[in-house]
Amino acid sequence: MSEIVSVYRKEHFNSAHRLNNPKWTPERNKEVFGKCNLPNYHGHNYELIVKVTGEIDPATGYVMDMKVLSDIISEQVLERFDHRNLNEDVPEFKELNPTAENIAVVIFRLLRPAIDEHLALQIRLFETPRNYVDYPASS
Amino acid sequence: MSEIVSVYRKEHFNSAHRLNNPKWTPERNKEVFGKCNLPNYHGHNYELIVKVTGEIDPATGYVMDMKVLSDIISEQVLERFDHRNLNEDVPEFKELNPTAENIAVVIFRLLRPAIDEHLALQIRLFETPRNYVDYPASS
Amino acid sequence: MSEIVSVYRKEHFNSAHRLNNPKWTPERNKEVFGKCNLPNYHGHNYELIVKVTGEIDPATGYVMDMKVLSDIISEQVLERFDHRNLNEDVPEFKELNPTAENIAVVIFRLLRPAIDEHLALQIRLFETPRNYVDYPASS
Amino acid sequence: MSEIVSVYRKEHFNSAHRLNNPKWTPERNKEVFGKCNLPNYHGHNYELIVKVTGEIDPATGYVMDMKVLSDIISEQVLERFDHRNLNEDVPEFKELNPTAENIAVVIFRLLRPAIDEHLALQIRLFETPRNYVDYPASS
Amino acid sequence: MSEIVSVYRKEHFNSAHRLNNPKWTPERNKEVFGKCNLPNYHGHNYELIVKVTGEIDPATGYVMDMKVLSDIISEQVLERFDHRNLNEDVPEFKELNPTAENIAVVIFRLLRPAIDEHLALQIRLFETPRNYVDYPASS
Amino acid sequence: MSEIVSVYRKEHFNSAHRLNNPKWTPERNKEVFGKCNLPNYHGHNYELIVKVTGEIDPATGYVMDMKVLSDIISEQVLERFDHRNLNEDVPEFKELNPTAENIAVVIFRLLRPAIDEHLALQIRLFETPRNYVDYPASS
Repeated sequence: MSEIVSVYRKEHFNSAHRLNNPKWTPERNKEVFGKCNLPNYHGHNYELIVKVTGEIDPATGYVMDMKVLSDIISEQVLERFDHRNLNEDVPEFKELNPTAENIAVVIFRLLRPAIDEHLALQIRLFETPRNYVDYPASS
Repeated sequence: MSEIVSVYRKEHFNSAHRLNNPKWTPERNKEVFGKCNLPNYHGHNYELIVKVTGEIDPATGYVMDMKVLSDIISEQVLERFDHRNLNEDVPEFKELNPTAENIAVVIFRLLRPAIDEHLALQIRLFETPRNYVDYPASS
Repeated sequence: MSEIVSVYRKEHFNSAHRLNNPKWTPERNKEVFGKCNLPNYHGHNYELIVKVTGEIDPATGYVMDMKVLSDIISEQVLERFDHRNLNEDVPEFKELNPTAENIAVVIFRLLRPAIDEHLALQIRLFETPRNYVDYPASS
Repeated sequence: MSEIVSVYRKEHFNSAHRLNNPKWTPERNKEVFGKCNLPNYHGHNYELIVKVTGEIDPATGYVMDMKVLSDIISEQVLERFDHRNLNEDVPEFKELNPTAENIAVVIFRLLRPAIDEHLALQIRLFETPRNYVDYPASS
Repeated sequence: MSEIVSVYRKEHFNSAHRLNNPKWTPERNKEVFGKCNLPNYHGHNYELIVKVTGEIDPATGYVMDMKVLSDIISEQVLERFDHRNLNEDVPEFKELNPTAENIAVVIFRLLRPAIDEHLALQIRLFETPRNYVDYPASS
Repeated sequence: MSEIVSVYRKEHFNSAHRLNNPKWTPERNKEVFGKCNLPNYHGHNYELIVKVTGEIDPATGYVMDMKVLSDIISEQVLERFDHRNLNEDVPEFKELNPTAENIAVVIFRLLRPAIDEHLALQIRLFETPRNYVDYPASS
């Protein structure tokens, strides 16, 4: 068989963050971001689902070895984000507000070069069990 | 960044309903809908996932403020459906069988005018953990 | 081995109900039960976990065959409650308010005679993923 | 209404399997498949989600009766796979490595002829809660 | 009926924290607490389950109104902990390491005076889906 | 504080097994164990929750370091059971039927010597999301 399949790997990391736009006044930040703007940070158990789409390799029956994908996610994402403060410890968020949307875009950009260019990539990120995002958008 | 992202918000409501086509005989209704046609209603913990797709606003890092989306869902859907009898209390189902498919279409129509027209909208509705629907259909 | 083990079987049923004390005025019922008192019923996907505790039978390695337990639950509980209106269709709730607490006690009484008297029995009932009860109380 | 909706039905089966390419040496198989290549098999609680997309039938409010879909899945998939050894008991895997990807393709081919040709079909298969696949690939 | 039942209410809060014993050297703290000792905090979606055990009130069918319990948890716990930094913002953890064990004990002490003394109280706290604690210990 | 707390760690393993009593005829085995007796094995994603109860250590705030507990579970249980055939590869089940009850007792006996004798130990094992056991029995 040489069929096109999407494969998914779920990982997680625990991070602190706060939402803030440094170009705004504190009042404007508090008004827009509410509790998420509190100064001393809060945090989440982020659940990350990485989706890779491509042809099944007839020799293995795999689109991509999930162990290899898991290792790439660990190296590129978990080692930078897990048990860290996204605002303070992750350079990508020095100037960029660490909303779920922006975190998903940053994760995509960290993973994209590490995955075979023939494979399509999509990121789903759960900030809580009730709030999550997809990048690129799913149709 | 001005990337296209899908954001999801999960809410729930608890409602009673029964399935019935008033143009059919009771026998035909019982044959087609089985236990779901029993006259005194049954009910569900409906889980509702609202998906909104659009560009990230560079000022906030949001596609849409999830608190605003949650408030819109409460006003447009939960206040009409939660702890109600869909057949008896919700005008949209006076003539329309409250299957998961039809409930999802009705929810879409209630939410669509309340959400910015530049944002795409999709409804996922779980009737039980094992039966759920998407409207519009996902590709 | 003849060790004491607890075994658990999870089942579910979907029912309509409303909360009401017929000895009270409508105002008092509305004040105490809020939306749960609305007249046309609402409903739930009830998740039922039946726990049976006893010695492992050395011939089978079972405390109790889960298929047998599942069949007993179907006969004694699901056939009476599933896709029914608890207030209207289940005689035990003609005089008894169908709160999660009372439903758990009623299920215990329906199951107790059908299960070997040497086995201890406990009921856990989820009314929603965030509200559940145990009868008898766990220590 | 005659709207296009996707409906989903979740089922499960428990099977043993191992991963192996008979054209390779044992060393190569061990290197590629690791623990999944161990000779005496291991197993999974596979969760299967079948998605069917089509128009809502205005007479029923259904895209497809979930009870009918559930019965088709039982007949075509569960009776062949559940409590079986995929490598030993399922002819489709005599020559085909039973990876999640290949199992999803085989399930698609078993179900496709049993479902109305006007309805689109997609398979999601969870091998574990953290590894799952879609066939055809979702966009 | 006047039966003894346990009732459970699930709530959640999102907080930042780090583990540290100020009496130890930084090296000793790093050795014992590993990544949990990193200086800029990380965070969790804490899931809190509050269990209350007592007699069913025959007038209501409730051990305790879950709406009242939910409000007490909000006032006593969520308003102090949610979207906060436990080490910096919660006085109870100025001198006490905010492990899951200690957080559960603190939550118990905050809730105990607000709940009827005839009702027994127990706290379950999930730090992650794979790590959780009970206080008092369950038997 | 020196309070008694229960702490829980969740792990998982994937194994093949079949149920069979070698002292019985094949007919009797088939009658009692049904599909679970099929000769070529089936399998499960077993979810294992290990509960340890004891005093909080005031220096760490831990009953037991979850990383240490996780490592003990890996060494004593996962390395023997994961991706294995319980009947063929695990000596404890050469003579003992690998029911969930018996697997839980065997896991308890493997872990008990590796954990401080002042700490109480209990095993919960999920064979499927709907069937699970506790050893020792919970009260």
